[in-house]
Amino acid sequence: MNNRSLDGKTIILRLELDTATAQFGKAATAIEKAGGDIIAIDVISTGRGLSVRDLTVKVSEQGTTARISEALGELPGIRLVNVSDRTFLLHLGGKIAIAPKTPIQNRDDLSRVYTPEVARVCTAISEDPSKAFNLTIKRNTVAVVSDGSAVLGLGNIGPYAAMPVMEGKAMLFKQFADVDAFPICLDTQDTEAVITAVKALAPGFGGINLEDISAPRCFEIERRLQAELDIPVFHDDQHGTAVVLYAGLLNALKLTERSLAEARIVICGIGAAGTACTKMLLAGGAKHVIGVDREGILTRDKTYANASWQWYADNTNEERRSGGLAEALEGADVFIGVSAGGILKRENIQRMAPDPIVFAMANPEPEIRPEQAEDLVAVFATGRSDYPNQINNVLCFPGIFRGALDCRATHINEAMKLAAAEAIASVIGEDELSPLYIVPSVFNGRVVEEVRRRVVQAAAATGVARRQVRE
Amino acid sequence: MNNRSLDGKTIILRLELDTATAQFGKAATAIEKAGGDIIAIDVISTGRGLSVRDLTVKVSEQGTTARISEALGELPGIRLVNVSDRTFLLHLGGKIAIAPKTPIQNRDDLSRVYTPEVARVCTAISEDPSKAFNLTIKRNTVAVVSDGSAVLGLGNIGPYAAMPVMEGKAMLFKQFADVDAFPICLDTQDTEAVITAVKALAPGFGGINLEDISAPRCFEIERRLQAELDIPVFHDDQHGTAVVLYAGLLNALKLTERSLAEARIVICGIGAAGTACTKMLLAGGAKHVIGVDREGILTRDKTYANASWQWYADNTNEERRSGGLAEALEGADVFIGVSAGGILKRENIQRMAPDPIVFAMANPEPEIRPEQAEDLVAVFATGRSDYPNQINNVLCFPGIFRGALDCRATHINEAMKLAAAEAIASVIGEDELSPLYIVPSVFNGRVVEEVRRRVVQAAAATGVARRQVRE
Repeated sequence: MNNRSLDGKTIILRLELDTATAQFGKAATAIEKAGGDIIAIDVISTGRGLSVRDLTVKVSEQGTTARISEALGELPGIRLVNVSDRTFLLHLGGKIAIAPKTPIQNRDDLSRVYTPEVARVCTAISEDPSKAFNLTIKRNTVAVVSDGSAVLGLGNIGPYAAMPVMEGKAMLFKQFADVDAFPICLDTQDTEAVITAVKALAPGFGGINLEDISAPRCFEIERRLQAELDIPVFHDDQHGTAVVLYAGLLNALKLTERSLAEARIVICGIGAAGTACTKMLLAGGAKHVIGVDREGILTRDKTYANASWQWYADNTNEERRSGGLAEALEGADVFIGVSAGGILKRENIQRMAPDPIVFAMANPEPEIRPEQAEDLVAVFATGRSDYPNQINNVLCFPGIFRGALDCRATHINEAMKLAAAEAIASVIGEDELSPLYIVPSVFNGRVVEEVRRRVVQAAAATGVARRQVRE
Repeated sequence: MNNRSLDGKTIILRLELDTATAQFGKAATAIEKAGGDIIAIDVISTGRGLSVRDLTVKVSEQGTTARISEALGELPGIRLVNVSDRTFLLHLGGKIAIAPKTPIQNRDDLSRVYTPEVARVCTAISEDPSKAFNLTIKRNTVAVVSDGSAVLGLGNIGPYAAMPVMEGKAMLFKQFADVDAFPICLDTQDTEAVITAVKALAPGFGGINLEDISAPRCFEIERRLQAELDIPVFHDDQHGTAVVLYAGLLNALKLTERSLAEARIVICGIGAAGTACTKMLLAGGAKHVIGVDREGILTRDKTYANASWQWYADNTNEERRSGGLAEALEGADVFIGVSAGGILKRENIQRMAPDPIVFAMANPEPEIRPEQAEDLVAVFATGRSDYPNQINNVLCFPGIFRGALDCRATHINEAMKLAAAEAIASVIGEDELSPLYIVPSVFNGRVVEEVRRRVVQAAAATGVARRQVRE
């Protein structure tokens, strides 16, 4: 735990005191001297010569928590068991629970939900497996699957440390779209083993949301799973980002009176998200896209070991430009960054076309801070919640899965993603649209309903819906 | 669906009517003529020339539902979409949901349960993976895993049809012991593939409850998983049955003033449950056990292709008896049946020792019906809820996992199973004990708490607890 980030907050210290040797007064004095303000003491347990207490302490200065920890370490008979703050307390024991839909209060209830009567339901599904969508949780349940190989900006922290993110995602699915999502973190990062595991566990689920799986493995994993399963497989880091970006771009282009087909677009960072964004833009009709990564502009004049870069070079940059980010941006209308903090300079933006659009989505530090560029751009978006125009996946995944589950889609295809993006963009009316308001808030209740509606339509129109949804 | 079993109940017929050709009056008449009593009509949707209605109908005579179905089939423009009854309606959309523990109402909530603050929690687990037990659902969550190969008495009906049972089990875990259990039905029945899949999905779980996996595959799957995972792996069909049987037997022996060491015990049906019951009896001190299966008494004078039968023959039947069930039961004190309905005869019981104990646990039809034998036996138990002394796994699995999770056990070992059995037996006081009351009701609230308490103690005593539980 990074103690620095705990400062300026309320923390909870759990102390174990050896009642024979510890002097609690000394502990209290040490905490106050280190800069902490004790506001509550809770005795958790006593007995067998040990007493456990939770101390709620206000800390305001940088480093206070570390100083308290050090000071307590010097006192005999006192052990600092744990330091929590409000975020950690919210995560205690995990963030989701299982809720039976009906109580089991007597033998009659028991015989219906379990043996012997459940056997009739099993038999019905055995005779017609498509009834699993009606008679089991498959109808409304999505697996949020990660292998912990690329979690947030933290990198390869493994399946145990990835769980809090997947649990959070499950909360968002439920809160925003009433989708029951369950987190599954896999204890393997072998591509084939991940594919095998997800296929094995799929029968109870109506969809698979892949999450925080590193590139380029994520491409193969998603492609194979979608080909080999009959339920939607959606890698949110790719497509969720692409959908919301596309939604924001639609509105930014409208504001600056450009068309997608004419816009000159530079995408910086050709990983999972950059590739998915580009594919959506091309599917939507973009004609002038240039990709830039560590080796500079991707061009068909070079060959790349990375297969997805090769695909990218072969399908973009029709002018065969070469050079770096600065050269790519010469005369460009749109910059889309899914790369690293601070790599975009004012000089780069100054060489773009008039009224440029900048989407600096690197997290937590954008490619350039809005305050360093706002005088130069027509529209600015980031991935952060503390600036206007946050490109946030939460705008997409709840509604797109809601729609896919409702019509029992076999896939989430390009048409459904475009429909989701158009739905998100459409939630902002012509009269509301402004450079500081191109995407709706994640708390806008109309987003999920509109995304769902258009996704269901697109699924039906493209033949991937297995159920007709009555409006 | 077996229509016969729907009779004597209220059923719901979903009809789709072509508004141009269908005459609803004729449908109503046909239903009444077939013996149905329409008690409610709900219009579900209308439009595009189609109308969908749900008819709630009382049926009392055998075969009424089939007759209604047939009669409606002859009417033009009317399609019987579905027939439901109360059990089916309870299963609609599945029986469990995901419940976020806290609501996400604003940006502040969102930033704590998801990005950016969740990253601090991830980092804490990454630095110390044991914190997964504190900061994720692992602390309280069990996977209920099946491959659908031996579901109830239905046999190999596959993973889709097995889901309703696993969902029911998840409900029971929550209702009886506040354990969050999630059903996972695997799309493979290959032993190695099942092992690989369960190992892969294990990180988010604090325990694995295996369920309805056919013998002998279940032995290898459980053994390997327990050896290769650091959380408890418990095949309920084996050990749940064994624990509750053992609990009942302890009280039956007490009632008839016998000791386990002296009792002559015959076990009929040497599959998963029979083997597990025998191992528990031996671990508890039984000395005279004879196993009987299709080939007769298992004896070390023969060799068996089935490895678990060979183990059985080598470790039981010290008198090297031979013959069939009748020979095995000569002079026996206890009959334990986990085999097939109707195979035990009155003559067999008449050749047992005085005051015999009969546990006829085959489901749904016991080895002999209580009414055919009650005049011959001292104590009679079955697996059925409609007779006294039901040997029901629900008495064991919620409490034993509650205890294992609370002390973060790495295993559920023999000592913990014996402790659970003794706990279940102990819930019935000396003064309450009677031939018709040897095991408590599954709705007896003291069972889970007592099982949990003794299981935690046994785990600590045998060194498999990773956490000290404060009473």
